[in-house]
Amino acid sequence: MSEQEVFRRPSESAFQQAALRVYDRCESLASVSCLPNGVGRYYLTPEHAACNQRVLAWMSEAGMETWIDAAGNCWGRWACDNPDAQTVILGSHLDTVAMAGKYDGILGVLSAIEVVELLKAEGVTLPYHIDVVGFGDEEGVRFGTTLLGSAAVAGRWQNDWFNLTDENGVTLAEAFRQFGLTPEEIGSANRARDDIKAYLELHIEQGPVLEQLGLPLGIVTAIAGARRFRFTLKGLAGHAGTVPMSMRRDPLTAAAKILTEIENLAIANSVVATVGKLEVRPAAVNVIPGECVFTLDIRSSEDAVRDKTVSAIFAVAEAFCESSGIHLDTEEFHHADAVECAAWLQTKIEQSLREVDLPVHSLMSGAGHDAMIFGGVFDIAMLFVRCEKGISHNPAEAVDVADVKAGLQGFARLLGNI
Amino acid sequence: MSEQEVFRRPSESAFQQAALRVYDRCESLASVSCLPNGVGRYYLTPEHAACNQRVLAWMSEAGMETWIDAAGNCWGRWACDNPDAQTVILGSHLDTVAMAGKYDGILGVLSAIEVVELLKAEGVTLPYHIDVVGFGDEEGVRFGTTLLGSAAVAGRWQNDWFNLTDENGVTLAEAFRQFGLTPEEIGSANRARDDIKAYLELHIEQGPVLEQLGLPLGIVTAIAGARRFRFTLKGLAGHAGTVPMSMRRDPLTAAAKILTEIENLAIANSVVATVGKLEVRPAAVNVIPGECVFTLDIRSSEDAVRDKTVSAIFAVAEAFCESSGIHLDTEEFHHADAVECAAWLQTKIEQSLREVDLPVHSLMSGAGHDAMIFGGVFDIAMLFVRCEKGISHNPAEAVDVADVKAGLQGFARLLGNI
Repeated sequence: MSEQEVFRRPSESAFQQAALRVYDRCESLASVSCLPNGVGRYYLTPEHAACNQRVLAWMSEAGMETWIDAAGNCWGRWACDNPDAQTVILGSHLDTVAMAGKYDGILGVLSAIEVVELLKAEGVTLPYHIDVVGFGDEEGVRFGTTLLGSAAVAGRWQNDWFNLTDENGVTLAEAFRQFGLTPEEIGSANRARDDIKAYLELHIEQGPVLEQLGLPLGIVTAIAGARRFRFTLKGLAGHAGTVPMSMRRDPLTAAAKILTEIENLAIANSVVATVGKLEVRPAAVNVIPGECVFTLDIRSSEDAVRDKTVSAIFAVAEAFCESSGIHLDTEEFHHADAVECAAWLQTKIEQSLREVDLPVHSLMSGAGHDAMIFGGVFDIAMLFVRCEKGISHNPAEAVDVADVKAGLQGFARLLGNI
Repeated sequence: MSEQEVFRRPSESAFQQAALRVYDRCESLASVSCLPNGVGRYYLTPEHAACNQRVLAWMSEAGMETWIDAAGNCWGRWACDNPDAQTVILGSHLDTVAMAGKYDGILGVLSAIEVVELLKAEGVTLPYHIDVVGFGDEEGVRFGTTLLGSAAVAGRWQNDWFNLTDENGVTLAEAFRQFGLTPEEIGSANRARDDIKAYLELHIEQGPVLEQLGLPLGIVTAIAGARRFRFTLKGLAGHAGTVPMSMRRDPLTAAAKILTEIENLAIANSVVATVGKLEVRPAAVNVIPGECVFTLDIRSSEDAVRDKTVSAIFAVAEAFCESSGIHLDTEEFHHADAVECAAWLQTKIEQSLREVDLPVHSLMSGAGHDAMIFGGVFDIAMLFVRCEKGISHNPAEAVDVADVKAGLQGFARLLGNI
């Protein structure tokens, strides 16, 4: 390890203090809520404004220039000496679901501020600008459309979104003006592709994998693409006593076999597949069902693998229904392809974690994140922090200070390596 | 074939005419309904009274003494010369479900009247009395309790039934009085066990078996006993994207495996088993279910076989749940044992059908019938008549005149054989 590297590395106790401060600030922001008994903070609300002010103040304390962009996202900049240098964006979102936890999104923004402060304190200089961003909308609670904040930055804003309304009938355009923003200026939030070296996001895992493996951090390979289908099976309703098993056309028993094959095929192909809704009609204890409708949500970091699995599921579903005299209809109602994390950034994260003696594990993100909207626009990477029992979108959401510290160590090192 | 037997056998054309008359009378009774656009005739209503009057008139035309018993059932008697002889009861019910067909129950009553008329016309004398009965309540639509009419005859009336109320709050006791009956006299409807030689019921199959086999008639072996259970499976709800297949505790995938085994075990044990209701919670497309509740209805002509199958189903359900980390609760909420048809009567029906050149096939009744309440009280037997597609409790209920004729031929012969 060179002199230079030793110089660049903040002390263990500095990381520990920084992690505690992130933890305290997550706690502090949780009180900026529109809900009396829980966390709820939505796009372009007074709580969003109050949250932005608190975060901008912390950015300023860390020595960054700050601003709010045309979409209401808050930014802090640690500029480097070369004004023509590219920029690395570190960020996540500041909005929440209703009755949320304290860490989903928030942890990534506050950790980024802390990393900047730690490196600046050590006198580190980087060959690129660092922009820390706290997006105003990822969850989509208020207007029913997700990723509004990051979409503006990615240049993927759609002008018809201004007609979206909240539950009080307030349009997004009106909400912009009430927040002090100008809808016509939304284009200025878009960051030019060539100016951005990378978008890096630290986030809680929102799943149980890291906890199960006993690991603090995970390197995200890709944000899974999801396809969603509705299967409608029609058979023949009948009397539970008078129709022998051999004469039945029971759509529920056919669905049961399909569900088992969905599980088998998901395991065999290393994808996740979920039947979350299943309904039976007429739903009487003494009537053989005449109709069964269920949904399938299937996700993979590799679209080809996911699509191959979908084809296999369709093939067995059609075969089961054909042989049971069941009419099968399928409808796809959602289709999003996977967004890959840049291979070079994954390699850099791996290298960085090893350099600070942290274990390395790569995993897919099954949930969506701001990073997703930058796919195909900027090079992206994500670092997952273990969360308790994989629970998220719930007041019970919890992370360990030691894991936050590990995340800060990994990210601080990464910035020296790219 | 002896002279005597030839004499006793009405002509083909007599049977044909009788079958047509049964058919027409079923049509006629269908108009005695409280529903403007369908058949609906319930216990102790004006329609019940009007139906009784029409049926009593037909019984009188056939040369029978008639009366209405203390439960509102209508009766016709063809007495034999020996006043101390036993009685054979032929009957079924005259009430219907809402939006009913024209044959369920009715066909058995009107066929019985026709058989009496045919045999009397041929100068046949029998060594026992024949009583034809049209029960006032089998379906239980008005007071929510089934088999009220036949229960009174079987001596199984429960006095607390008088407190049952219809949807207008009218008690059964009030309905008795409005119908001209005296609740206190209900005991007089009870027929003494030793006086009854047999209870014979002709009924549409209400299932698809005879049609599938191309047979007009079926000899009922037993009226199936049913057990009903509620299975509650509790696992762990989770994010459809972030929980790997290997870490899931999905109660729906466990239920799917159980459903497939229920079907397999039902087929292997020749019982009928039906999962008619299945519900999933929280029922969101992107959430792994946390709970799944389903019902099981299982029936067999043999209680021991049914119970063995139930045990096998429980064993696999417990094993699947155990291995998937699912908590399983089961609750039995209905238990009725099978009622066997008297072996000697089944033999007599078989002999009778062969004598009139009709094919013989025995089958279980999966549905309940008036005959059921006489199990353990009188010797019972049932003859099923094929119905179209097995459809019943539906305006589309249909029978063929040729099959009604076969039923009359079989029953007429049977009366000469017992």
